[in-house]
Amino acid sequence: MKTAIFPGSFDPFTLGHLDVLNSALLVFDKVIIAVGYNSTKNGFFSQQARVEMIKDATADMENVEVVCYNGMTIDLCRKMKVNFIIRGLRTTTDFELESVIAQANKQMNEKILTVFIPASSEYSFISSTVVRDVLVNGGNAKKFLPKEIDIDKYLKERE
Amino acid sequence: MKTAIFPGSFDPFTLGHLDVLNSALLVFDKVIIAVGYNSTKNGFFSQQARVEMIKDATADMENVEVVCYNGMTIDLCRKMKVNFIIRGLRTTTDFELESVIAQANKQMNEKILTVFIPASSEYSFISSTVVRDVLVNGGNAKKFLPKEIDIDKYLKERE
Amino acid sequence: MKTAIFPGSFDPFTLGHLDVLNSALLVFDKVIIAVGYNSTKNGFFSQQARVEMIKDATADMENVEVVCYNGMTIDLCRKMKVNFIIRGLRTTTDFELESVIAQANKQMNEKILTVFIPASSEYSFISSTVVRDVLVNGGNAKKFLPKEIDIDKYLKERE
Amino acid sequence: MKTAIFPGSFDPFTLGHLDVLNSALLVFDKVIIAVGYNSTKNGFFSQQARVEMIKDATADMENVEVVCYNGMTIDLCRKMKVNFIIRGLRTTTDFELESVIAQANKQMNEKILTVFIPASSEYSFISSTVVRDVLVNGGNAKKFLPKEIDIDKYLKERE
Amino acid sequence: MKTAIFPGSFDPFTLGHLDVLNSALLVFDKVIIAVGYNSTKNGFFSQQARVEMIKDATADMENVEVVCYNGMTIDLCRKMKVNFIIRGLRTTTDFELESVIAQANKQMNEKILTVFIPASSEYSFISSTVVRDVLVNGGNAKKFLPKEIDIDKYLKERE
Amino acid sequence: MKTAIFPGSFDPFTLGHLDVLNSALLVFDKVIIAVGYNSTKNGFFSQQARVEMIKDATADMENVEVVCYNGMTIDLCRKMKVNFIIRGLRTTTDFELESVIAQANKQMNEKILTVFIPASSEYSFISSTVVRDVLVNGGNAKKFLPKEIDIDKYLKERE
Repeated sequence: MKTAIFPGSFDPFTLGHLDVLNSALLVFDKVIIAVGYNSTKNGFFSQQARVEMIKDATADMENVEVVCYNGMTIDLCRKMKVNFIIRGLRTTTDFELESVIAQANKQMNEKILTVFIPASSEYSFISSTVVRDVLVNGGNAKKFLPKEIDIDKYLKERE
Repeated sequence: MKTAIFPGSFDPFTLGHLDVLNSALLVFDKVIIAVGYNSTKNGFFSQQARVEMIKDATADMENVEVVCYNGMTIDLCRKMKVNFIIRGLRTTTDFELESVIAQANKQMNEKILTVFIPASSEYSFISSTVVRDVLVNGGNAKKFLPKEIDIDKYLKERE
Repeated sequence: MKTAIFPGSFDPFTLGHLDVLNSALLVFDKVIIAVGYNSTKNGFFSQQARVEMIKDATADMENVEVVCYNGMTIDLCRKMKVNFIIRGLRTTTDFELESVIAQANKQMNEKILTVFIPASSEYSFISSTVVRDVLVNGGNAKKFLPKEIDIDKYLKERE
Repeated sequence: MKTAIFPGSFDPFTLGHLDVLNSALLVFDKVIIAVGYNSTKNGFFSQQARVEMIKDATADMENVEVVCYNGMTIDLCRKMKVNFIIRGLRTTTDFELESVIAQANKQMNEKILTVFIPASSEYSFISSTVVRDVLVNGGNAKKFLPKEIDIDKYLKERE
Repeated sequence: MKTAIFPGSFDPFTLGHLDVLNSALLVFDKVIIAVGYNSTKNGFFSQQARVEMIKDATADMENVEVVCYNGMTIDLCRKMKVNFIIRGLRTTTDFELESVIAQANKQMNEKILTVFIPASSEYSFISSTVVRDVLVNGGNAKKFLPKEIDIDKYLKERE
Repeated sequence: MKTAIFPGSFDPFTLGHLDVLNSALLVFDKVIIAVGYNSTKNGFFSQQARVEMIKDATADMENVEVVCYNGMTIDLCRKMKVNFIIRGLRTTTDFELESVIAQANKQMNEKILTVFIPASSEYSFISSTVVRDVLVNGGNAKKFLPKEIDIDKYLKERE
């Protein structure tokens, strides 16, 4: 059975992430969504809220697990005995940044392979940054989010 | 009459912005320069100072209006009944970032069209970031700024 | 009245071009689609066939004219007394190439302004190159082309 | 059993391709290397020679098949009942080109998923173009090629 | 005698920086490594610690000097009577950012020439950002650092 | 004495090349401009004409030599006992292409170092491709060329 970790901050989880997840589930038997905690940067949503949103969005999907983690992704890989990392790519800027990280990870643990999945063109403009920008300005971000996520509930929790 | 909004932080307004503005005025009958307020990031100059500098620089130009705004650009467009957004492009990084925002805006309001104007090569290295970096280090940024802007006055006001 | 030239090889005219044309017609009062002839490279379709396809696709549109041209785009601009050039942008590679050409044109005739219109995300993967590649391999390219273009007719004419 | 097609011109197959192949074999149970025939461009090596070189280089590998094909990659996928396409990525230019093709393929057959594998940094400068450039100038390209490929033999066959 | 300044934050100095330094010493007779102080951003290591690490790493090298500086690089150049600036390049994002800065510097002092040195492919994924990310997560960054740097000592000093 | 080779097709030599040459002469004691011959692609101007044009443009410059070569640049370096290669960079596409070649050259001969010099912003849009495109269409390319080059004479020789 082939398992991959799909790490990210998912702040919040968008239709773009869901699209990459659906593609990843075609390739791998199981995908573990790993919600990172960045000690130097406060999230817009709490790590716990981000996990819950992803659980809402993937409740009906088999072979998906959602976990929290701190520290390095390769340490999580070793702990969970997983050798594959999934990353979605939207832009050339994404590609360069992710390539550097993929190489560094491989250098630190040569068993780790990062696999890139291109964003579908209809979601290529959806990033968590864009969504947060809409939310912070009181806009309606629902068309960028999985329909199962009740974003208003999570926005209230932030207050 | 065709009107476009030219949004930005303009912190400060540079010769590069002026060049894009001049080009935009050839295409549109009126251009509204909209100085954004970013709630998560303090500006180098106050929003009010930035507006004044632009007014200094465009005092002799017809068909230019300068406004402040908070919130989303598409909300400003709706409020001002404007369907065109102008953005200048210097680098491929600009292009990717701006394309994502243009698509997201179009997705939220299909009437909104973003038009890109390439920076002239002689101004392609002038960004507000470069200017602030010069100013913060006590350097002379005058050759990057419209001659009508008395930058020393605004620097004093910051203190 | 503001008129722009939309130059290209349009070999063939795709849904991506149509999308840029529709955006351009919002900004300009009239758009002249100028089908270039490249003396060093044979087209896939003849210049005449390309013009006809565009006429098919734009038959119901007002304020659109289709012309053929040889030589430089800025010479066509001068001849037609037009100062605006429209170019669609899909990728950063497009952006860099087009920026260089826009600057060179401006350098040769300072009145010429090139305006860039970003491709909508749903058409961002459609290029004439992709379409020709599909056609040359006997694939079905109809979903990449305006519905008014009877591509089979033009393919037969090539034989 | 999950099978992927690794299409390309492989003119010739390099250490960079071998690196991508080795990564792909970790993810997929079988990889079919599909050597394309480009009707509009003569290869440096014949399609048959390119197939033989890959067979030389992969003789000791299990779960690898080498095939020739003409036409579109998605037609090959359908014929071979394979839904995954593998592409290696070295540069941002690669990424943009491959993204466009991946989207177009998905648009023509929604079952097709393209998975990108980043080139290892030590092979990131090796392309078939570089190798051919060395060979055409009488240089020694052996350090860019799998050691099982007797390139001199294939060079002689070209004459 | 030709001297160049190699400015940066070097937070910390990596094998990638060492590689660029070694190349720079082939071109120039002397290289001054200038460790910048960014007033708006706290470093991970103190400016003093960064200087010491570079001295550790370059102890056996001739023609290398290490200095601290605040303010603009071109002011340091003038003060030290040096007209050449060295910058290493890893990615296209680096290239665009550095080109803008190089042009701005040249505009402010036309005597200043920035020379770019490409990172060797084996170090192209090593950035100070990656190293800090490893360190902050308790990982082992030694394979990214010159062997003369006792990183544990400097990490202890931070506490 | 430090000598560098500045290789290229220079078809033709432009103000952009001259700008890079002038910068290179600040860094190196001597620069050898090496005009390549591409066996698979006919030049617009003959290799001999290209050499003559460069001699015209550099007649008053000391420490410049112009040579023709066939084959690989690293073979020319070895033959001329030169370890430095100069390349000008205009765009990110240039950068990626040149980085690959620089790495491949270093891999084949570890003594070879490629140094990149950024094009000045005022020449960043001038490429030989743009100039040839102007010339082939009967346009006036004089503002893109060194004033010493009598381009009409060379155009006549082509006929």
